[in-house]
Amino acid sequence: MAKNITDPKTDYSKWYQDVIREAELADLAPVRGCMIIRPYGYAIWENIKDDLNRKFKETGHQNAYFPLLIPQSFINKEAEHVKGFAPELAVVTHGGGKELEEPLVIRPTSETIINHMFSKWINSYRDLPMLLNQWANVVRWEMRPRAFLRTTEFLWQEGHTAHATEMEAREETLKILDLYTDFAVNTAAIPVIAGRKTEREKFAGAVNSYTIEAMMGNGWALQSGTSHYLGTNFAKVFDTKYLDSNNQQQFVHQTSWGISTRMVGGVIMVHGDEFGLKLPPRLAPIQVVIVPIARDDKSRSRIMEQVDKLSDALKELNTRVEIDLRDGMSPGFKFNYWEVRGVPIRLEFGIRDLDAGHIMVSPRNKPGRDGKFTIPLDSAADTISNLLDTIQSEMLADATQKRDDNTFSVDSLEEFKQAIVEQPGFYSVWWDGDSENEEKLQQLTKTTIRCIPTNQPDGTGKCIMTGREASVKVILARAY
Amino acid sequence: MAKNITDPKTDYSKWYQDVIREAELADLAPVRGCMIIRPYGYAIWENIKDDLNRKFKETGHQNAYFPLLIPQSFINKEAEHVKGFAPELAVVTHGGGKELEEPLVIRPTSETIINHMFSKWINSYRDLPMLLNQWANVVRWEMRPRAFLRTTEFLWQEGHTAHATEMEAREETLKILDLYTDFAVNTAAIPVIAGRKTEREKFAGAVNSYTIEAMMGNGWALQSGTSHYLGTNFAKVFDTKYLDSNNQQQFVHQTSWGISTRMVGGVIMVHGDEFGLKLPPRLAPIQVVIVPIARDDKSRSRIMEQVDKLSDALKELNTRVEIDLRDGMSPGFKFNYWEVRGVPIRLEFGIRDLDAGHIMVSPRNKPGRDGKFTIPLDSAADTISNLLDTIQSEMLADATQKRDDNTFSVDSLEEFKQAIVEQPGFYSVWWDGDSENEEKLQQLTKTTIRCIPTNQPDGTGKCIMTGREASVKVILARAY
Repeated sequence: MAKNITDPKTDYSKWYQDVIREAELADLAPVRGCMIIRPYGYAIWENIKDDLNRKFKETGHQNAYFPLLIPQSFINKEAEHVKGFAPELAVVTHGGGKELEEPLVIRPTSETIINHMFSKWINSYRDLPMLLNQWANVVRWEMRPRAFLRTTEFLWQEGHTAHATEMEAREETLKILDLYTDFAVNTAAIPVIAGRKTEREKFAGAVNSYTIEAMMGNGWALQSGTSHYLGTNFAKVFDTKYLDSNNQQQFVHQTSWGISTRMVGGVIMVHGDEFGLKLPPRLAPIQVVIVPIARDDKSRSRIMEQVDKLSDALKELNTRVEIDLRDGMSPGFKFNYWEVRGVPIRLEFGIRDLDAGHIMVSPRNKPGRDGKFTIPLDSAADTISNLLDTIQSEMLADATQKRDDNTFSVDSLEEFKQAIVEQPGFYSVWWDGDSENEEKLQQLTKTTIRCIPTNQPDGTGKCIMTGREASVKVILARAY
Repeated sequence: MAKNITDPKTDYSKWYQDVIREAELADLAPVRGCMIIRPYGYAIWENIKDDLNRKFKETGHQNAYFPLLIPQSFINKEAEHVKGFAPELAVVTHGGGKELEEPLVIRPTSETIINHMFSKWINSYRDLPMLLNQWANVVRWEMRPRAFLRTTEFLWQEGHTAHATEMEAREETLKILDLYTDFAVNTAAIPVIAGRKTEREKFAGAVNSYTIEAMMGNGWALQSGTSHYLGTNFAKVFDTKYLDSNNQQQFVHQTSWGISTRMVGGVIMVHGDEFGLKLPPRLAPIQVVIVPIARDDKSRSRIMEQVDKLSDALKELNTRVEIDLRDGMSPGFKFNYWEVRGVPIRLEFGIRDLDAGHIMVSPRNKPGRDGKFTIPLDSAADTISNLLDTIQSEMLADATQKRDDNTFSVDSLEEFKQAIVEQPGFYSVWWDGDSENEEKLQQLTKTTIRCIPTNQPDGTGKCIMTGREASVKVILARAY
C-alpha cells in the first residue's frame, strides 16, 4: 500500500481523491465545482486528444471553433434541449461594464450555435456531408462535483455532422460509436459495452443516443463517450436545409458526439490500485523511467554512460522515457514516486547490474518484488519497447477479466435488489419497461439502465419490472 | 485580381474581410464581437499551436489547464490589473438556476487564478522554477471587433512562470521574446521588431512588457506576441512565497506571455495580396495541391497513376499534399480556388505534361503565367519539397523588404505628422517623453509607440515631443 493512499477496498471515493492528489493530476479550484488540471493530468488528456484527433481526421472530420457565448434564445429553441440544459446553465448578464440586452449563456454543448452556422453554410447537397469537430471547454453547473468525473467546467471534443439522409447520419452515429470503442479498448485499455441509451437517459434533443459504458474498480459504471443521432430536431428549429439533386428543399439529418476529460477519471478508476495510478502505455506521459543507482562518482559516470545510451535507443523507438537524476532522494523514494504516478515500466540500474550486463525491470502492472526481472542490457531497448505492448495487452485483459467477473445475470427484481448491494457490478436483465418503470427501478435500487447493448442474446425472458416477456436485455448498474 | 476580392490598395479593410470570407477562414458569430473559426482558418491556428507547443516543451514548459471562471474578487486584488481589465470583463451572475453569491468573471487572462494556485503549490526553492503554459480561450469585451485581430473571445496560449530571483525571471521573459521572434520569423515568415513597451502601453500588472511588432500590408503595426516581467506584483497580493536555501520566506518573481489567434490575422495581412491569402509553407494546412487535367477516361487513368505516385512520394517527405479530384469544375475555377486559399504550390498535370515527362509548377508567391515553370516528373517530389523551403525564404525576404521599404526615420513632429499620413509605416524617432507626451502624440497623429526596440543605434538625438536630447529611438505607427 502506498503512503497517503487509502485502500480502495476501504473507501473507494477517498482512494480516488488520494490518487489524484498524490499523482498530482488535478486540484480544486476556488470556484465550486471547477478544477485545475495539473501538468501530469493534462499530459494524459493530451495523449487522449492526440489519439482521438488522429482518428477523427482519418475519418474525414475537420476541426473548427465555435464561440463560448450563446444567446439564451438559441438554447430555448429546441424544446427538449432547453428542458435538459436550463438547470445547468451559467449566465452572463454583464459585459464591457454594461448590462446586456439579452443574457448570454456559456455553452453547455454547441448544437444550437452550430446549427445556426450550418443553416448559413449549407445550401446544396454538394455541401454535405459536413463533418466538423471542436476541442473546447463547456460549462454545466454541477451540484455534486468530483474531479474529472463531474465538474462545472470540463474539456471535451464535440463532433457535429450534417448529412443528406437519415441513413447516412445513422451510419455516422454508429461509426463514431465504433471509433470510441476502438479508442477505449485499444488505447485506454478499457473494455466497454457499447449500446443504445433508453428514452429516459438519452441526450436532450436527440432521437437516439448511443454510449460506451465502462466498469470502474468499485463496480460502478462510467458513461465514457456518447454518440447521438439528432434526426432533424435541430434542423427544423434552425431551418438547416439543403437543396437536393431534384431541386427540393430538405432538412439535414444530424449527429453529435463527445468524449471529455471524464475519460481521465475512467483511466484512474479502471486501472488504479492500492499503490496509486496505473497507466496504459499508450496514454502514459512517461512510459519508461530509468532510476540510476550510483553510490560514488566513479560508478556514476559508468552507469550514466549506459543509461544515456539506453534512453537514446528508447527515444529512437518513439518511447517516452525519462531519467530520474534528482539528488538527495533515496532509490526507494523514487520507486514509490513513479509507482504512484503509474509509469508503466521502471528500470533500476546500479553498478552490480552494469557488471552483470543486465538491467532490472519493474513493470507497474506487477508491482512489488515478485514482478521484477532482469533483461540483458545489450538488447534492452527492443525488449522494453515490446514489453510496453505486452503491458498494454495485459492491462486490457486484466480489466476485461475484472469486468466480466463483476457482470451478472439476474432474473427478478428481488434477486437484483439484494445482489446489487452485496456485489456492485453490471447486471444484465430482461427489459420491457418504460421511463416510469425505469424511474421506479432507480428509486428502489439507485441503479440506472446504462445501455441496451448492441450485442444481444437470442431468445426472450421476463422483464424484471413489468413481468412481461421481453426480447432485449439491458445493463443495470450504479453510475457516476 | 481575384473575383470578390477588393483591391487592397483601394480599401485595405474591405480586402481583409473579403479574403477571410473567400478563403473561408472565419465567420461572424451571432454574439457581437465573437467569431467562428472555420476549418481552414483553424488548421492554420493548429499549425501555429503545434510549432509553439513544441518550442515551449523543448524549453522545459509544461501544459496545464486552469478554470474559465474566476471570482471577481481575484481580479480586484492587483490594483493595476483591475484598472486595465475591469472595463472588458464578461460577468456571470447566475449559475444552476440561482443568482450567485459572488459574481464570477470569465478569464480575460489568468494571472490571478494561477497565482492563487502557485501560492498553494510553491513552498520551497526546490519547487522553482515553475514553468507552465495553457492553451485556452479568454474573453475581453470588444467594442471595435475585427476578425482574428480583435474579438471578444479569442484563443491563445498563456505562459506563466515563477522563479526564485528577479534575474531568472527577467531571463525567462527575454528567452520567450526570442522564442516568439524565432517563431514569427522562421515559421510565419513575418519579420518583427522586438522591443520593450513604454509604461503607457505595458500590460496591466507588469513591471516590464516586451513585444514583437509586425508591419501589416497597409503599413499599420500589429502587436503579435508579448512577454511580461511581472516582478513580485502578483506574488505580493496572492502571497506566493517560497522558503529559500537559507530558510527565509521570499516572494517569487514571475513572468507571463502570450500569442493568440490574432497571429492568423497577421499572417493574412503580412502576406496576402490582390489574389487572396498567401500562406508560408510552414503554416499552410495544404502545402501542395495537385490539379489533374484529364479530357477523357483513358488519359485520366494514365494521369492519375502518376499523380498518385507523386502524392505518395510527397507524403513520404512529410509534405501536406492534396489532389483536387472534384468533378464539374473547370481547371481555371480550381486554380482560382486554391490561389484564394493561399496554397504555396499548385501543380497542374495534363496528358501533354505526361507525354513530355514534366509537371507544371505554379508557386503562389509568383502568381500568374510568368511565375509558372515545368520540372521533370521523375524527380518532382524532391524538387517540390525543396521549393517549399525556397518559398518560405522568399516570403520572409519579400516581407522584410516591404517592411524596410516602409520604415522611415524622422527628426521632428511636424515632419512626422505629414509623413505618417502620406506614407503609413514604421517611423523611428528619438524619444525622451513620458506618458503624457505619448498621449498627446496619439491625439495628434493617431499613432502609438509600438516599442523601444532592443536593437538601438549609437548616439543621441532630439526627442520629437520634448525637444530634449534623447538616447533611445522608438517605433511609431498606427496599430490594430
